[in-house]
Amino acid sequence: MIGNDRKVAVIGSGVIGAGWAARFLLNGWDVSVFDPDPSAGKRLMRVLDNARVALPGLSDMSVPREGRLTTTRSLEEASAHACWIQESIPERLDIKKKLISDLATLVSSDCIVASSTSGFRPSVLAEGSPIARQVMVCHPFNPVYLLPLVEVVGHKQTDPELLARADRILSELGMRALIIRKEIDAHVADRLMEAAWREALWLVRDGIATTEEIDESIRLGFGLRWAQMGLFETFRIAGGDAGMQHFLEQFGPCLEMPWTRLTDVPELTEDLVKSIASQSDAQSSHLSIRELERIRDGNLVAVLRALKGRNWGAGAVLNAHDAVRGQSEPDEFAGPVRTVSRAVPLDWTDYNGHMNEARYLQAFGDATDRFMEIVGCDAEYIAAGNSYFTVETHIRHIDELLAGDSLVIDTICLQGEPRKMKLFHRMLNETGDLVATGEHLLLHVDLQTRRTSPARPRVMKKLGRIAEFHSRLDPPDGIGRAVGQRP
Amino acid sequence: MIGNDRKVAVIGSGVIGAGWAARFLLNGWDVSVFDPDPSAGKRLMRVLDNARVALPGLSDMSVPREGRLTTTRSLEEASAHACWIQESIPERLDIKKKLISDLATLVSSDCIVASSTSGFRPSVLAEGSPIARQVMVCHPFNPVYLLPLVEVVGHKQTDPELLARADRILSELGMRALIIRKEIDAHVADRLMEAAWREALWLVRDGIATTEEIDESIRLGFGLRWAQMGLFETFRIAGGDAGMQHFLEQFGPCLEMPWTRLTDVPELTEDLVKSIASQSDAQSSHLSIRELERIRDGNLVAVLRALKGRNWGAGAVLNAHDAVRGQSEPDEFAGPVRTVSRAVPLDWTDYNGHMNEARYLQAFGDATDRFMEIVGCDAEYIAAGNSYFTVETHIRHIDELLAGDSLVIDTICLQGEPRKMKLFHRMLNETGDLVATGEHLLLHVDLQTRRTSPARPRVMKKLGRIAEFHSRLDPPDGIGRAVGQRP
Repeated sequence: MIGNDRKVAVIGSGVIGAGWAARFLLNGWDVSVFDPDPSAGKRLMRVLDNARVALPGLSDMSVPREGRLTTTRSLEEASAHACWIQESIPERLDIKKKLISDLATLVSSDCIVASSTSGFRPSVLAEGSPIARQVMVCHPFNPVYLLPLVEVVGHKQTDPELLARADRILSELGMRALIIRKEIDAHVADRLMEAAWREALWLVRDGIATTEEIDESIRLGFGLRWAQMGLFETFRIAGGDAGMQHFLEQFGPCLEMPWTRLTDVPELTEDLVKSIASQSDAQSSHLSIRELERIRDGNLVAVLRALKGRNWGAGAVLNAHDAVRGQSEPDEFAGPVRTVSRAVPLDWTDYNGHMNEARYLQAFGDATDRFMEIVGCDAEYIAAGNSYFTVETHIRHIDELLAGDSLVIDTICLQGEPRKMKLFHRMLNETGDLVATGEHLLLHVDLQTRRTSPARPRVMKKLGRIAEFHSRLDPPDGIGRAVGQRP
Repeated sequence: MIGNDRKVAVIGSGVIGAGWAARFLLNGWDVSVFDPDPSAGKRLMRVLDNARVALPGLSDMSVPREGRLTTTRSLEEASAHACWIQESIPERLDIKKKLISDLATLVSSDCIVASSTSGFRPSVLAEGSPIARQVMVCHPFNPVYLLPLVEVVGHKQTDPELLARADRILSELGMRALIIRKEIDAHVADRLMEAAWREALWLVRDGIATTEEIDESIRLGFGLRWAQMGLFETFRIAGGDAGMQHFLEQFGPCLEMPWTRLTDVPELTEDLVKSIASQSDAQSSHLSIRELERIRDGNLVAVLRALKGRNWGAGAVLNAHDAVRGQSEPDEFAGPVRTVSRAVPLDWTDYNGHMNEARYLQAFGDATDRFMEIVGCDAEYIAAGNSYFTVETHIRHIDELLAGDSLVIDTICLQGEPRKMKLFHRMLNETGDLVATGEHLLLHVDLQTRRTSPARPRVMKKLGRIAEFHSRLDPPDGIGRAVGQRP
């Protein structure tokens, strides 16, 4: 049994397993799935459909070709040649232990055997297993194809090399492994959630607030803070210049106050279950679970991309993923330069159901930024006080693009003078058809005076060379047009 | 004492009081502040500076003129003629009760007396006060000028009319009042936070995770979910088609499991305080509190605007606020039509420190949408399968705009035929200087076939009338230009 280095076996394809399958597949891995439930296949396809629309556009560059998906009829078939087993079966210790025991004879000795468990400690799962050193917890968050966090927990016998490899692979999948050094039931995030959940159950039971009011109290207030900073950094700010020690001294006494009911756990009586279920229906039953899923994904993509623009938190994870994928440096400029290669993000579409007009200019702006970078007007050059400002733009919108569609932009330099640069971008769809053109005049500026200035020699040299190469090309169709002009 | 219907007295201008002052001021209220702390004035100005950059751009229309800010030297001076007192002094019951007692002779009988307390119940604050019927809790979330949530809690004696008025005013301030029907220590949101906070203290104390790791476990995972749905709606999705009752039956048993430490509260020993403070330093001390505040605000604006684009959660609150502000319907078309009037949002700026080029087209796109609406191509018309698609665009970027700057767009209709509409937008800054022009050719389309079609008579009639009026105007400078063409 030799492990293929990009093949994962996903065991159990509920909402978590299916999410893992999507995350691996859309990052170019081959995925074999085993789930004895007859409805598993349909659910897997639904999750994959959602992921295909939402995930590729989180990246600002081209994504790998999708891997091969196989659904199998046995654990043996699924795990053959896999270098990673991801277990996502129900939260029952007996069946999880049984699975690990069954895997012992099926996997190679360098295969990662990871459990998605929300609660069990890895040492409990691995107890008595001959493959104990391969067993770890990799606990993701739903939807797995969008949220970056994975809690990675080893136990005493877990091979540190396998933990390090898991860390590296998760990062290649655009995820962030949070290595938990000391195992504990429910790891870290779920303990925080469980605490809030128990308090929420009390609030409903005591008739203080309905499920909807509790959700509003989260998403209109501290939920917005927690999406980007978390608990401690938020409180650090609240503490002000005096720092965290001061904050703790000030708010410490609250621990003595009756501010939570969490000295005890409410009993989930039949009445309480009914009351929560009917409040939840009142809050959300006008939307089906599928609709809620799609709404959630659209919201998460918008929020994640907002944080990406800020290079902060989960957005910084996305940027790091793009950076690892890297961009090829064009080594010759005889033809147009490929400056953008990406998918249309969910949040770039509008009420007409297609990519909004302003996003065409955003993509052309990205193409211009990339071209600037290629000629040497990079972050360092800009930090030194030099940049280009666009002063005039002409766009032809020739065809539509939908969320998830691929697009590329090829750029020609029409003019490259010390103070002036003229670019012509051609945007093409997946099949190579022209969907838009952009023509842009940029001036080189001194960021101090905000006035035009000549480009530095290093930039000028490269720009001049490309402009000269491109002057030999046939002028592309659509140059120099005014709006509405007859062709 | 007659209350001015748009004057608030802010008592205590710490980070919460200053946030309230900013929220009221930037929504056009007069604000008088009283805080005996000599450093209060400086802090107030810092919060106001942050708010002026961040808040106006949350709206997609023009915001009211800022109210008048007065800092006063006494409670009496501050509360004169106020119709709303907002108390945000330290969390000590004795001084809060003393303040309410002092206010009794200073406020009119229809003045709202609201406390920002995180923990105390309003009946405790109002106990024995002659103005008990005016006392309520209005508990906001930091930063008050950005987060929409306010927990509004009355007690038995609170006048329902005053509660209803508070609800209405908070909504005018762009906030969402969550009316808590049954008072309880720490209200709702802080109880959930306090539960998570106590669990987090255990995790640090037990050496499971550092403050930074706990923050990562939140903001890379469930924090992103909670920013847009909350706890119950998220779990409803996880429960799938079987509904919330099924979810509870499945996960109920976890309540018996040792998944939180919250049967007891950790003691804040000196060691634990030091350990948290030093972990927090390791995590965040490379940034000052001011820097963290600005980063947080930028992140929140980006996340809030992302949710606004989705019309969901906190974003739906922002849209509702815009809708209440309303847009004036132009009643005659002899001159250009004012189609946009707004501030530049924080997330519209780029590495050059000014509004990014794509946002010019976004603003022109909004102007086009507004013009379409004016001629009758509104949501209903689009839902019926008709719309306009932009096919060609020309932009001149003439001057820069910075975050928080005001801009307006005036639109001229250059052409209004059954299948074709040509618009010319002029973008002006606060002082009326031209900062950009946009020329756009749009085709009327059938959204079913995605091909051109003639506009319906109702739209054509209005469009034709405006085009005729505008044909009598002097043609604006810059029409019909190609990129780089000599003037």
